[in-house]
Amino acid sequence: MSVPLRAVDVIIKKRDGQELTRAEIQFFVRGFAEGNIPDYQASALSMAILLNGMTPRETADLTLEMVGSGQTIDLTDTVSLVVDKHSTGGVGDKTTLAVGPMVAACGLPVGKMSGRGLGFSGGTLDKIEAIPGFRTDLSIGEFKSQLKEIGLVLTGQTGELAPADGKLYSLRDVTGTVQSIPLIASSVMSKKIAAGAQAIVLDVKVGSGAFMQTLEEGHLLARSMVDIARLAGRQAVAFLSDMNQPLGVAVGNALETIEAIETLQGNGPPDFVEHCLTLAGRMLVLGKVAATSGEARALVEQSISAGSAFAHFRRLVESQGGDVSYVDDFSKFPVAPFIKEVYPVQEGFYKWIDARIVGETAVSLGAGRAVKSDKIDHSVGVLVHKKVGDRASQDEPIFTIHANHSEVLPRTEERLHEALQYSDVKIEALPYFYGMYDSEGMYLEDTG
Amino acid sequence: MSVPLRAVDVIIKKRDGQELTRAEIQFFVRGFAEGNIPDYQASALSMAILLNGMTPRETADLTLEMVGSGQTIDLTDTVSLVVDKHSTGGVGDKTTLAVGPMVAACGLPVGKMSGRGLGFSGGTLDKIEAIPGFRTDLSIGEFKSQLKEIGLVLTGQTGELAPADGKLYSLRDVTGTVQSIPLIASSVMSKKIAAGAQAIVLDVKVGSGAFMQTLEEGHLLARSMVDIARLAGRQAVAFLSDMNQPLGVAVGNALETIEAIETLQGNGPPDFVEHCLTLAGRMLVLGKVAATSGEARALVEQSISAGSAFAHFRRLVESQGGDVSYVDDFSKFPVAPFIKEVYPVQEGFYKWIDARIVGETAVSLGAGRAVKSDKIDHSVGVLVHKKVGDRASQDEPIFTIHANHSEVLPRTEERLHEALQYSDVKIEALPYFYGMYDSEGMYLEDTG
Repeated sequence: MSVPLRAVDVIIKKRDGQELTRAEIQFFVRGFAEGNIPDYQASALSMAILLNGMTPRETADLTLEMVGSGQTIDLTDTVSLVVDKHSTGGVGDKTTLAVGPMVAACGLPVGKMSGRGLGFSGGTLDKIEAIPGFRTDLSIGEFKSQLKEIGLVLTGQTGELAPADGKLYSLRDVTGTVQSIPLIASSVMSKKIAAGAQAIVLDVKVGSGAFMQTLEEGHLLARSMVDIARLAGRQAVAFLSDMNQPLGVAVGNALETIEAIETLQGNGPPDFVEHCLTLAGRMLVLGKVAATSGEARALVEQSISAGSAFAHFRRLVESQGGDVSYVDDFSKFPVAPFIKEVYPVQEGFYKWIDARIVGETAVSLGAGRAVKSDKIDHSVGVLVHKKVGDRASQDEPIFTIHANHSEVLPRTEERLHEALQYSDVKIEALPYFYGMYDSEGMYLEDTG
Repeated sequence: MSVPLRAVDVIIKKRDGQELTRAEIQFFVRGFAEGNIPDYQASALSMAILLNGMTPRETADLTLEMVGSGQTIDLTDTVSLVVDKHSTGGVGDKTTLAVGPMVAACGLPVGKMSGRGLGFSGGTLDKIEAIPGFRTDLSIGEFKSQLKEIGLVLTGQTGELAPADGKLYSLRDVTGTVQSIPLIASSVMSKKIAAGAQAIVLDVKVGSGAFMQTLEEGHLLARSMVDIARLAGRQAVAFLSDMNQPLGVAVGNALETIEAIETLQGNGPPDFVEHCLTLAGRMLVLGKVAATSGEARALVEQSISAGSAFAHFRRLVESQGGDVSYVDDFSKFPVAPFIKEVYPVQEGFYKWIDARIVGETAVSLGAGRAVKSDKIDHSVGVLVHKKVGDRASQDEPIFTIHANHSEVLPRTEERLHEALQYSDVKIEALPYFYGMYDSEGMYLEDTG
């Protein structure tokens, strides 16, 4: 067609439920990124996408156009195969801190760009910064040379990756267009692809403490991201994991970093250990270090028992300027002055331990930010000692609050009680995983 | 609720298909009108409204808030009951030029604010300005004093009526959010109510030459506008009239003004006469000048045969500075230099005479504007000599083209042939009206 495209016609086409062409998506994303298409047209298109959806092909095209809006990192001169992981965010999710060293210890280099906490959900950078001196602002040059040297990097995203996504996300945040599967999926995947990932293990969390509240939404997002990867010539697998109750015991920055190190030392909570073994194992399979998930799992277990996983974590901290004495002696981490145990109000079994309420409680103690400029308090948080299905006994605490002000304790305790539901009869434990999508988009209930 | 409203929450509520409260609509419209809510939020809300709809209550609240965004004209000190009319726009629709004088001649004052042509659809102001000197920029003071003195005014809308609607319309135009029944209905009704109308006769045109292409859309728009009026404490009735073929014979500014004057003199084309009698009659019933539509119709017919309708038109032109010698002698109107008759390409019956193609052809001759700054050529246009169901005979022209350049004649003729479909067998005439909604929202097939 020789007729020049008009932004309004692209909007109308999506409004009327039609599929946009690659050329139309390219025109719109480039125009928006360059400032030729104004915010009011981008927000109208976002709302039309939210309400009318996008096909996998459109979503992949949108992703690749956002990738093309900025610089991309080429790691093929640094490592042979770039395998990344991404979690959609949850409560107690310190997985990257443990999985990165495990995988690197098994011989697959991991260069990870992580994010900060968002709402009730914690952020990996906030957690690792509980170790004084740890730098999360590496340049791309530093990133590459450390990846080559020690096979492990953990830093913040550089500002130049997929800038169109950053600009669109800010707009979506104020126009009610965040909750769209194709927009969420393309936002995540554009940053991963721009950062050079060739294969990606996705951890789609589902439940009260996740952004995807229902399993149905989780399926849609997981499927969409795997489709994008395949259509964009990458490989991704996506786990659907439970986030109705917090992951592991610790919720809070220093508390979670300690728990991640303990896990690397072979002393992690069972649910978190299982989570890490599964994700790390799948990264090793995608990275062609292991042929099967069974083989991969054995390698990861060995990296823990042999101490090489922990050694990698220690080297990571050292390499990025962190104080390794904290890693060797947890007592150096700041401890909140007011520690209070919370006991169940009745006996029986725990039927529900609401992850969102626990996450929000940790944020209100100072572990997260209400507004962007808030300072994180690394010492505060909540320990969650039981899981759904465990026996509730008035002798055994369910929570331990770590607070910096005594006056917040009563309302914190009250709020935490609201997270709990009890049963008189034995309750099934919640699953760790619901299933997974393989890189062909096939759904498998068995994630092992 | 003491929590202050946020624009994004209003958008999310509508995005999720919920009904907005009066307070939410008020907050959004005021914020937008005052510039506190940016365009990108208003366009996202407009798209959500377009795709998820609005209840009659919400639509009425939106209308009243747009009315409240600017000044309103109070005519109660000028006339006892303000009855207005509005057409949604069509091809050959010179109704206001004839109906205004008819109704005024029957004793019901008519102060009409009209618009300009839009796309393929003509505008009353463009038509009346074929009479040199006719002013369409009266002040509100002039409007009121002329309404009091001669009972008839025809001018452009002042800029201060429902400014939020004007601002929103400009945004909708570039964000693909024009085609929303609640947004169209509230836009029309906000201007009518702000102009002081207490009762309104709405002419919703349906068909190829109308903005509502299907009868179904026409029903929705008609019903929505009648609902708004009732919920806003006004009265409206809405006719659904056919716009698949042009109304009357003339399409083009001077040609239509002449046809309107001929109609006032008792020499109008039958379809246009019937259209005017029906609309004028209903205005007289709403204005309590006549008790029944039969009685009203008789009054209108008398105003034509007695010459008082024409006399009112003449007085209108005189009062607004127009050259009345044109009214008395049509030969003074500019005549296009190239006049060409178009004959049917086959014998039989006319099955289709496409109003949109005729309207677009007139615009391409210069009767309308491609862009806002274009100058109107008052002399050009198309005469349409036959109606659907009439016999097509190669001795009788179907169209007469009035053009200002000989070189456009071949392609104009070619385009007009595309408007025609023929039948070998006798075809039913198209109805003038499909039905009407009374002020209670009851649908009546009989519009008499």
